[in-house]
Amino acid sequence: MRTPTEAGVADGSAAAAAPPDVDLRHHGDVEVRGEGALVDLAVNVRAGTPPAWLKQCVAASLDGLAAYPDGRAARAAVAARHGVPPERVLLTAGAAEAFVLLARALRVRRPVVVHPQFTEPEAALRDAGHAVGRVLLRPEDGFRLDPGLVPEDADLVVIGNPTNPTSVLHRAADIVRIARPGRVLVVDEAFMDAVPGEREALAGRVDVPGLVVLRSLTKTWGLAGLRIGYVLTDPAVVAELSRAQPLWPVSSPALAAAEACVSPRALAEAGHVAHRVAAERRYLVGGLGELPGVSVAGPAAGPFVLVRVADGLVVRERLRERGFAVRRGDTFPGLGAEWLRVAVRDRGTTDAFLGAVRGVLAVGP
Amino acid sequence: MRTPTEAGVADGSAAAAAPPDVDLRHHGDVEVRGEGALVDLAVNVRAGTPPAWLKQCVAASLDGLAAYPDGRAARAAVAARHGVPPERVLLTAGAAEAFVLLARALRVRRPVVVHPQFTEPEAALRDAGHAVGRVLLRPEDGFRLDPGLVPEDADLVVIGNPTNPTSVLHRAADIVRIARPGRVLVVDEAFMDAVPGEREALAGRVDVPGLVVLRSLTKTWGLAGLRIGYVLTDPAVVAELSRAQPLWPVSSPALAAAEACVSPRALAEAGHVAHRVAAERRYLVGGLGELPGVSVAGPAAGPFVLVRVADGLVVRERLRERGFAVRRGDTFPGLGAEWLRVAVRDRGTTDAFLGAVRGVLAVGP
Repeated sequence: MRTPTEAGVADGSAAAAAPPDVDLRHHGDVEVRGEGALVDLAVNVRAGTPPAWLKQCVAASLDGLAAYPDGRAARAAVAARHGVPPERVLLTAGAAEAFVLLARALRVRRPVVVHPQFTEPEAALRDAGHAVGRVLLRPEDGFRLDPGLVPEDADLVVIGNPTNPTSVLHRAADIVRIARPGRVLVVDEAFMDAVPGEREALAGRVDVPGLVVLRSLTKTWGLAGLRIGYVLTDPAVVAELSRAQPLWPVSSPALAAAEACVSPRALAEAGHVAHRVAAERRYLVGGLGELPGVSVAGPAAGPFVLVRVADGLVVRERLRERGFAVRRGDTFPGLGAEWLRVAVRDRGTTDAFLGAVRGVLAVGP
Repeated sequence: MRTPTEAGVADGSAAAAAPPDVDLRHHGDVEVRGEGALVDLAVNVRAGTPPAWLKQCVAASLDGLAAYPDGRAARAAVAARHGVPPERVLLTAGAAEAFVLLARALRVRRPVVVHPQFTEPEAALRDAGHAVGRVLLRPEDGFRLDPGLVPEDADLVVIGNPTNPTSVLHRAADIVRIARPGRVLVVDEAFMDAVPGEREALAGRVDVPGLVVLRSLTKTWGLAGLRIGYVLTDPAVVAELSRAQPLWPVSSPALAAAEACVSPRALAEAGHVAHRVAAERRYLVGGLGELPGVSVAGPAAGPFVLVRVADGLVVRERLRERGFAVRRGDTFPGLGAEWLRVAVRDRGTTDAFLGAVRGVLAVGP
């Protein structure tokens, strides 16, 4: 159904160029569908979520379902959380809607996506008829951002921070160097709340020209099913994007959840979770580091890690046979079959997973 | 923020032409916001909804919120309810999203909206950059459809059935006469499930070229806050529209509700409700008919009636002072300040409302 246009590539490494027919619409949720009970290390949603207090808060909103959604309170709460006026906030039906709005509502001619990263922004841009340029960050550089790689004439640049799937956290100062008047700079901070102290966050900054920050409540709070996220940007851009939204774009339960997830209580809990994720990630990375022929991109800063292993797709298949679903890496532009993305889980799950990897590698892929 | 383009008007009556600056984005939910507890006769959502069994069903879905929505079961259930293959079904975040998709994803050059009707289709078409033609049905014709009024070169025609706000039910045979190869014929059947036997429904018809039927679960089931509706049309059009949707466009609670609302149990309840609405409407229309200077458009077939009364906007204000919110009619193209839309409610509410109208008219507007 989709005919991907040939993408221009601004790239340091020819070997890193992605095949033009890569399936940008492949997502982790598909990896855990189907046969029985795989342990899910493929989807980047925190396990054991949503917490009971949040679920109760969403449940309470069901009493008001007969009324059309009124997003004003949630918008004000999100604005207060980031210390910006409500006019700088747009609530969306998940980050996915934000990507479609950015692709369709803004007048841009030369969009560029910094890869490897979440593929949905490029897919949405292509679907909207754009030819999409790519900047490919290289494994030998630790997938670290080099602002100089972004073409000068790019008028929309999309970058993730921390980046899915590399887990790399770019320096805010490096990202800001990409900004300039006349250019929209989209920073997808969907996983920033999993970084202790949200260091390197640009959300709430009002001094960066063209800055558009995307936030998700899906991953930390386990609300993937609810479709809620938000955009922080200039009021004029908010107005432009909102004109392309349907009426009542966010459901009442999602609005209730948004308001709850930016409360002081929720922010404290998210901070706590971020530290726990960091500890569990160190444990996972340490364990993987002991395995022969396995390396981890990094330093990893998100609630997932990107693993390099020979014959990655075969390893993935063998892991499925042993009950573990991991995310294939080869559908991300700039990555090949030797890459797998693995979610950070609790110690017991990680131990079991490391045992399965050891088993697979001992048998040989 | 919005700059409505001048609309072309194909019209039997010059007097019926709407001012070009009418606020197409005015909706009933705004009429009941603000000061205290007005009795809501402005919003077309059934009172006392959602029913407990449906609320429980939505609440049960909250346990799965951490997973991304999977719309396959709901899509299959909707398809089965209308006796069509799933490929003919597109689930949307309310009918509002469907209007945006139709306006933005289809290649049309000469869209025409049959007015008076729900203003969102025209607003969405304008926002997408279209010049929108209007066919204005006339009060002296009972707002009845004359297929001959539709311009021959229209390649997209939008019509509501039964029509909001006139409550008129067009004959399916008359609507079908508008269809032709190369023309998209959008029939908004958002209120059809409130018509006993759904007579004149086109949902499920596969023999009408270019037919696109929109359905809502919002009104009968009290799910306005949940954002769920669907489109029935040719598989090729479904594919075209879905490409313009964001990923995971409908939330898991909304999917659970959709599946529940097309169950045999729900359909039986909807049928029962439709008969009750018809009886309550007869009572309301009868009561209004006894008031001097008041007339009702019709025959009314929906869960609301369109009332004509001199100085309608003043009457509306006086009714607000007496605690009743009704929907102003003057923001609908083809209607003026003498029109008010009133929801059909239970007998007690209707009696109280009729008393208030009598009081207002006795004092004089």
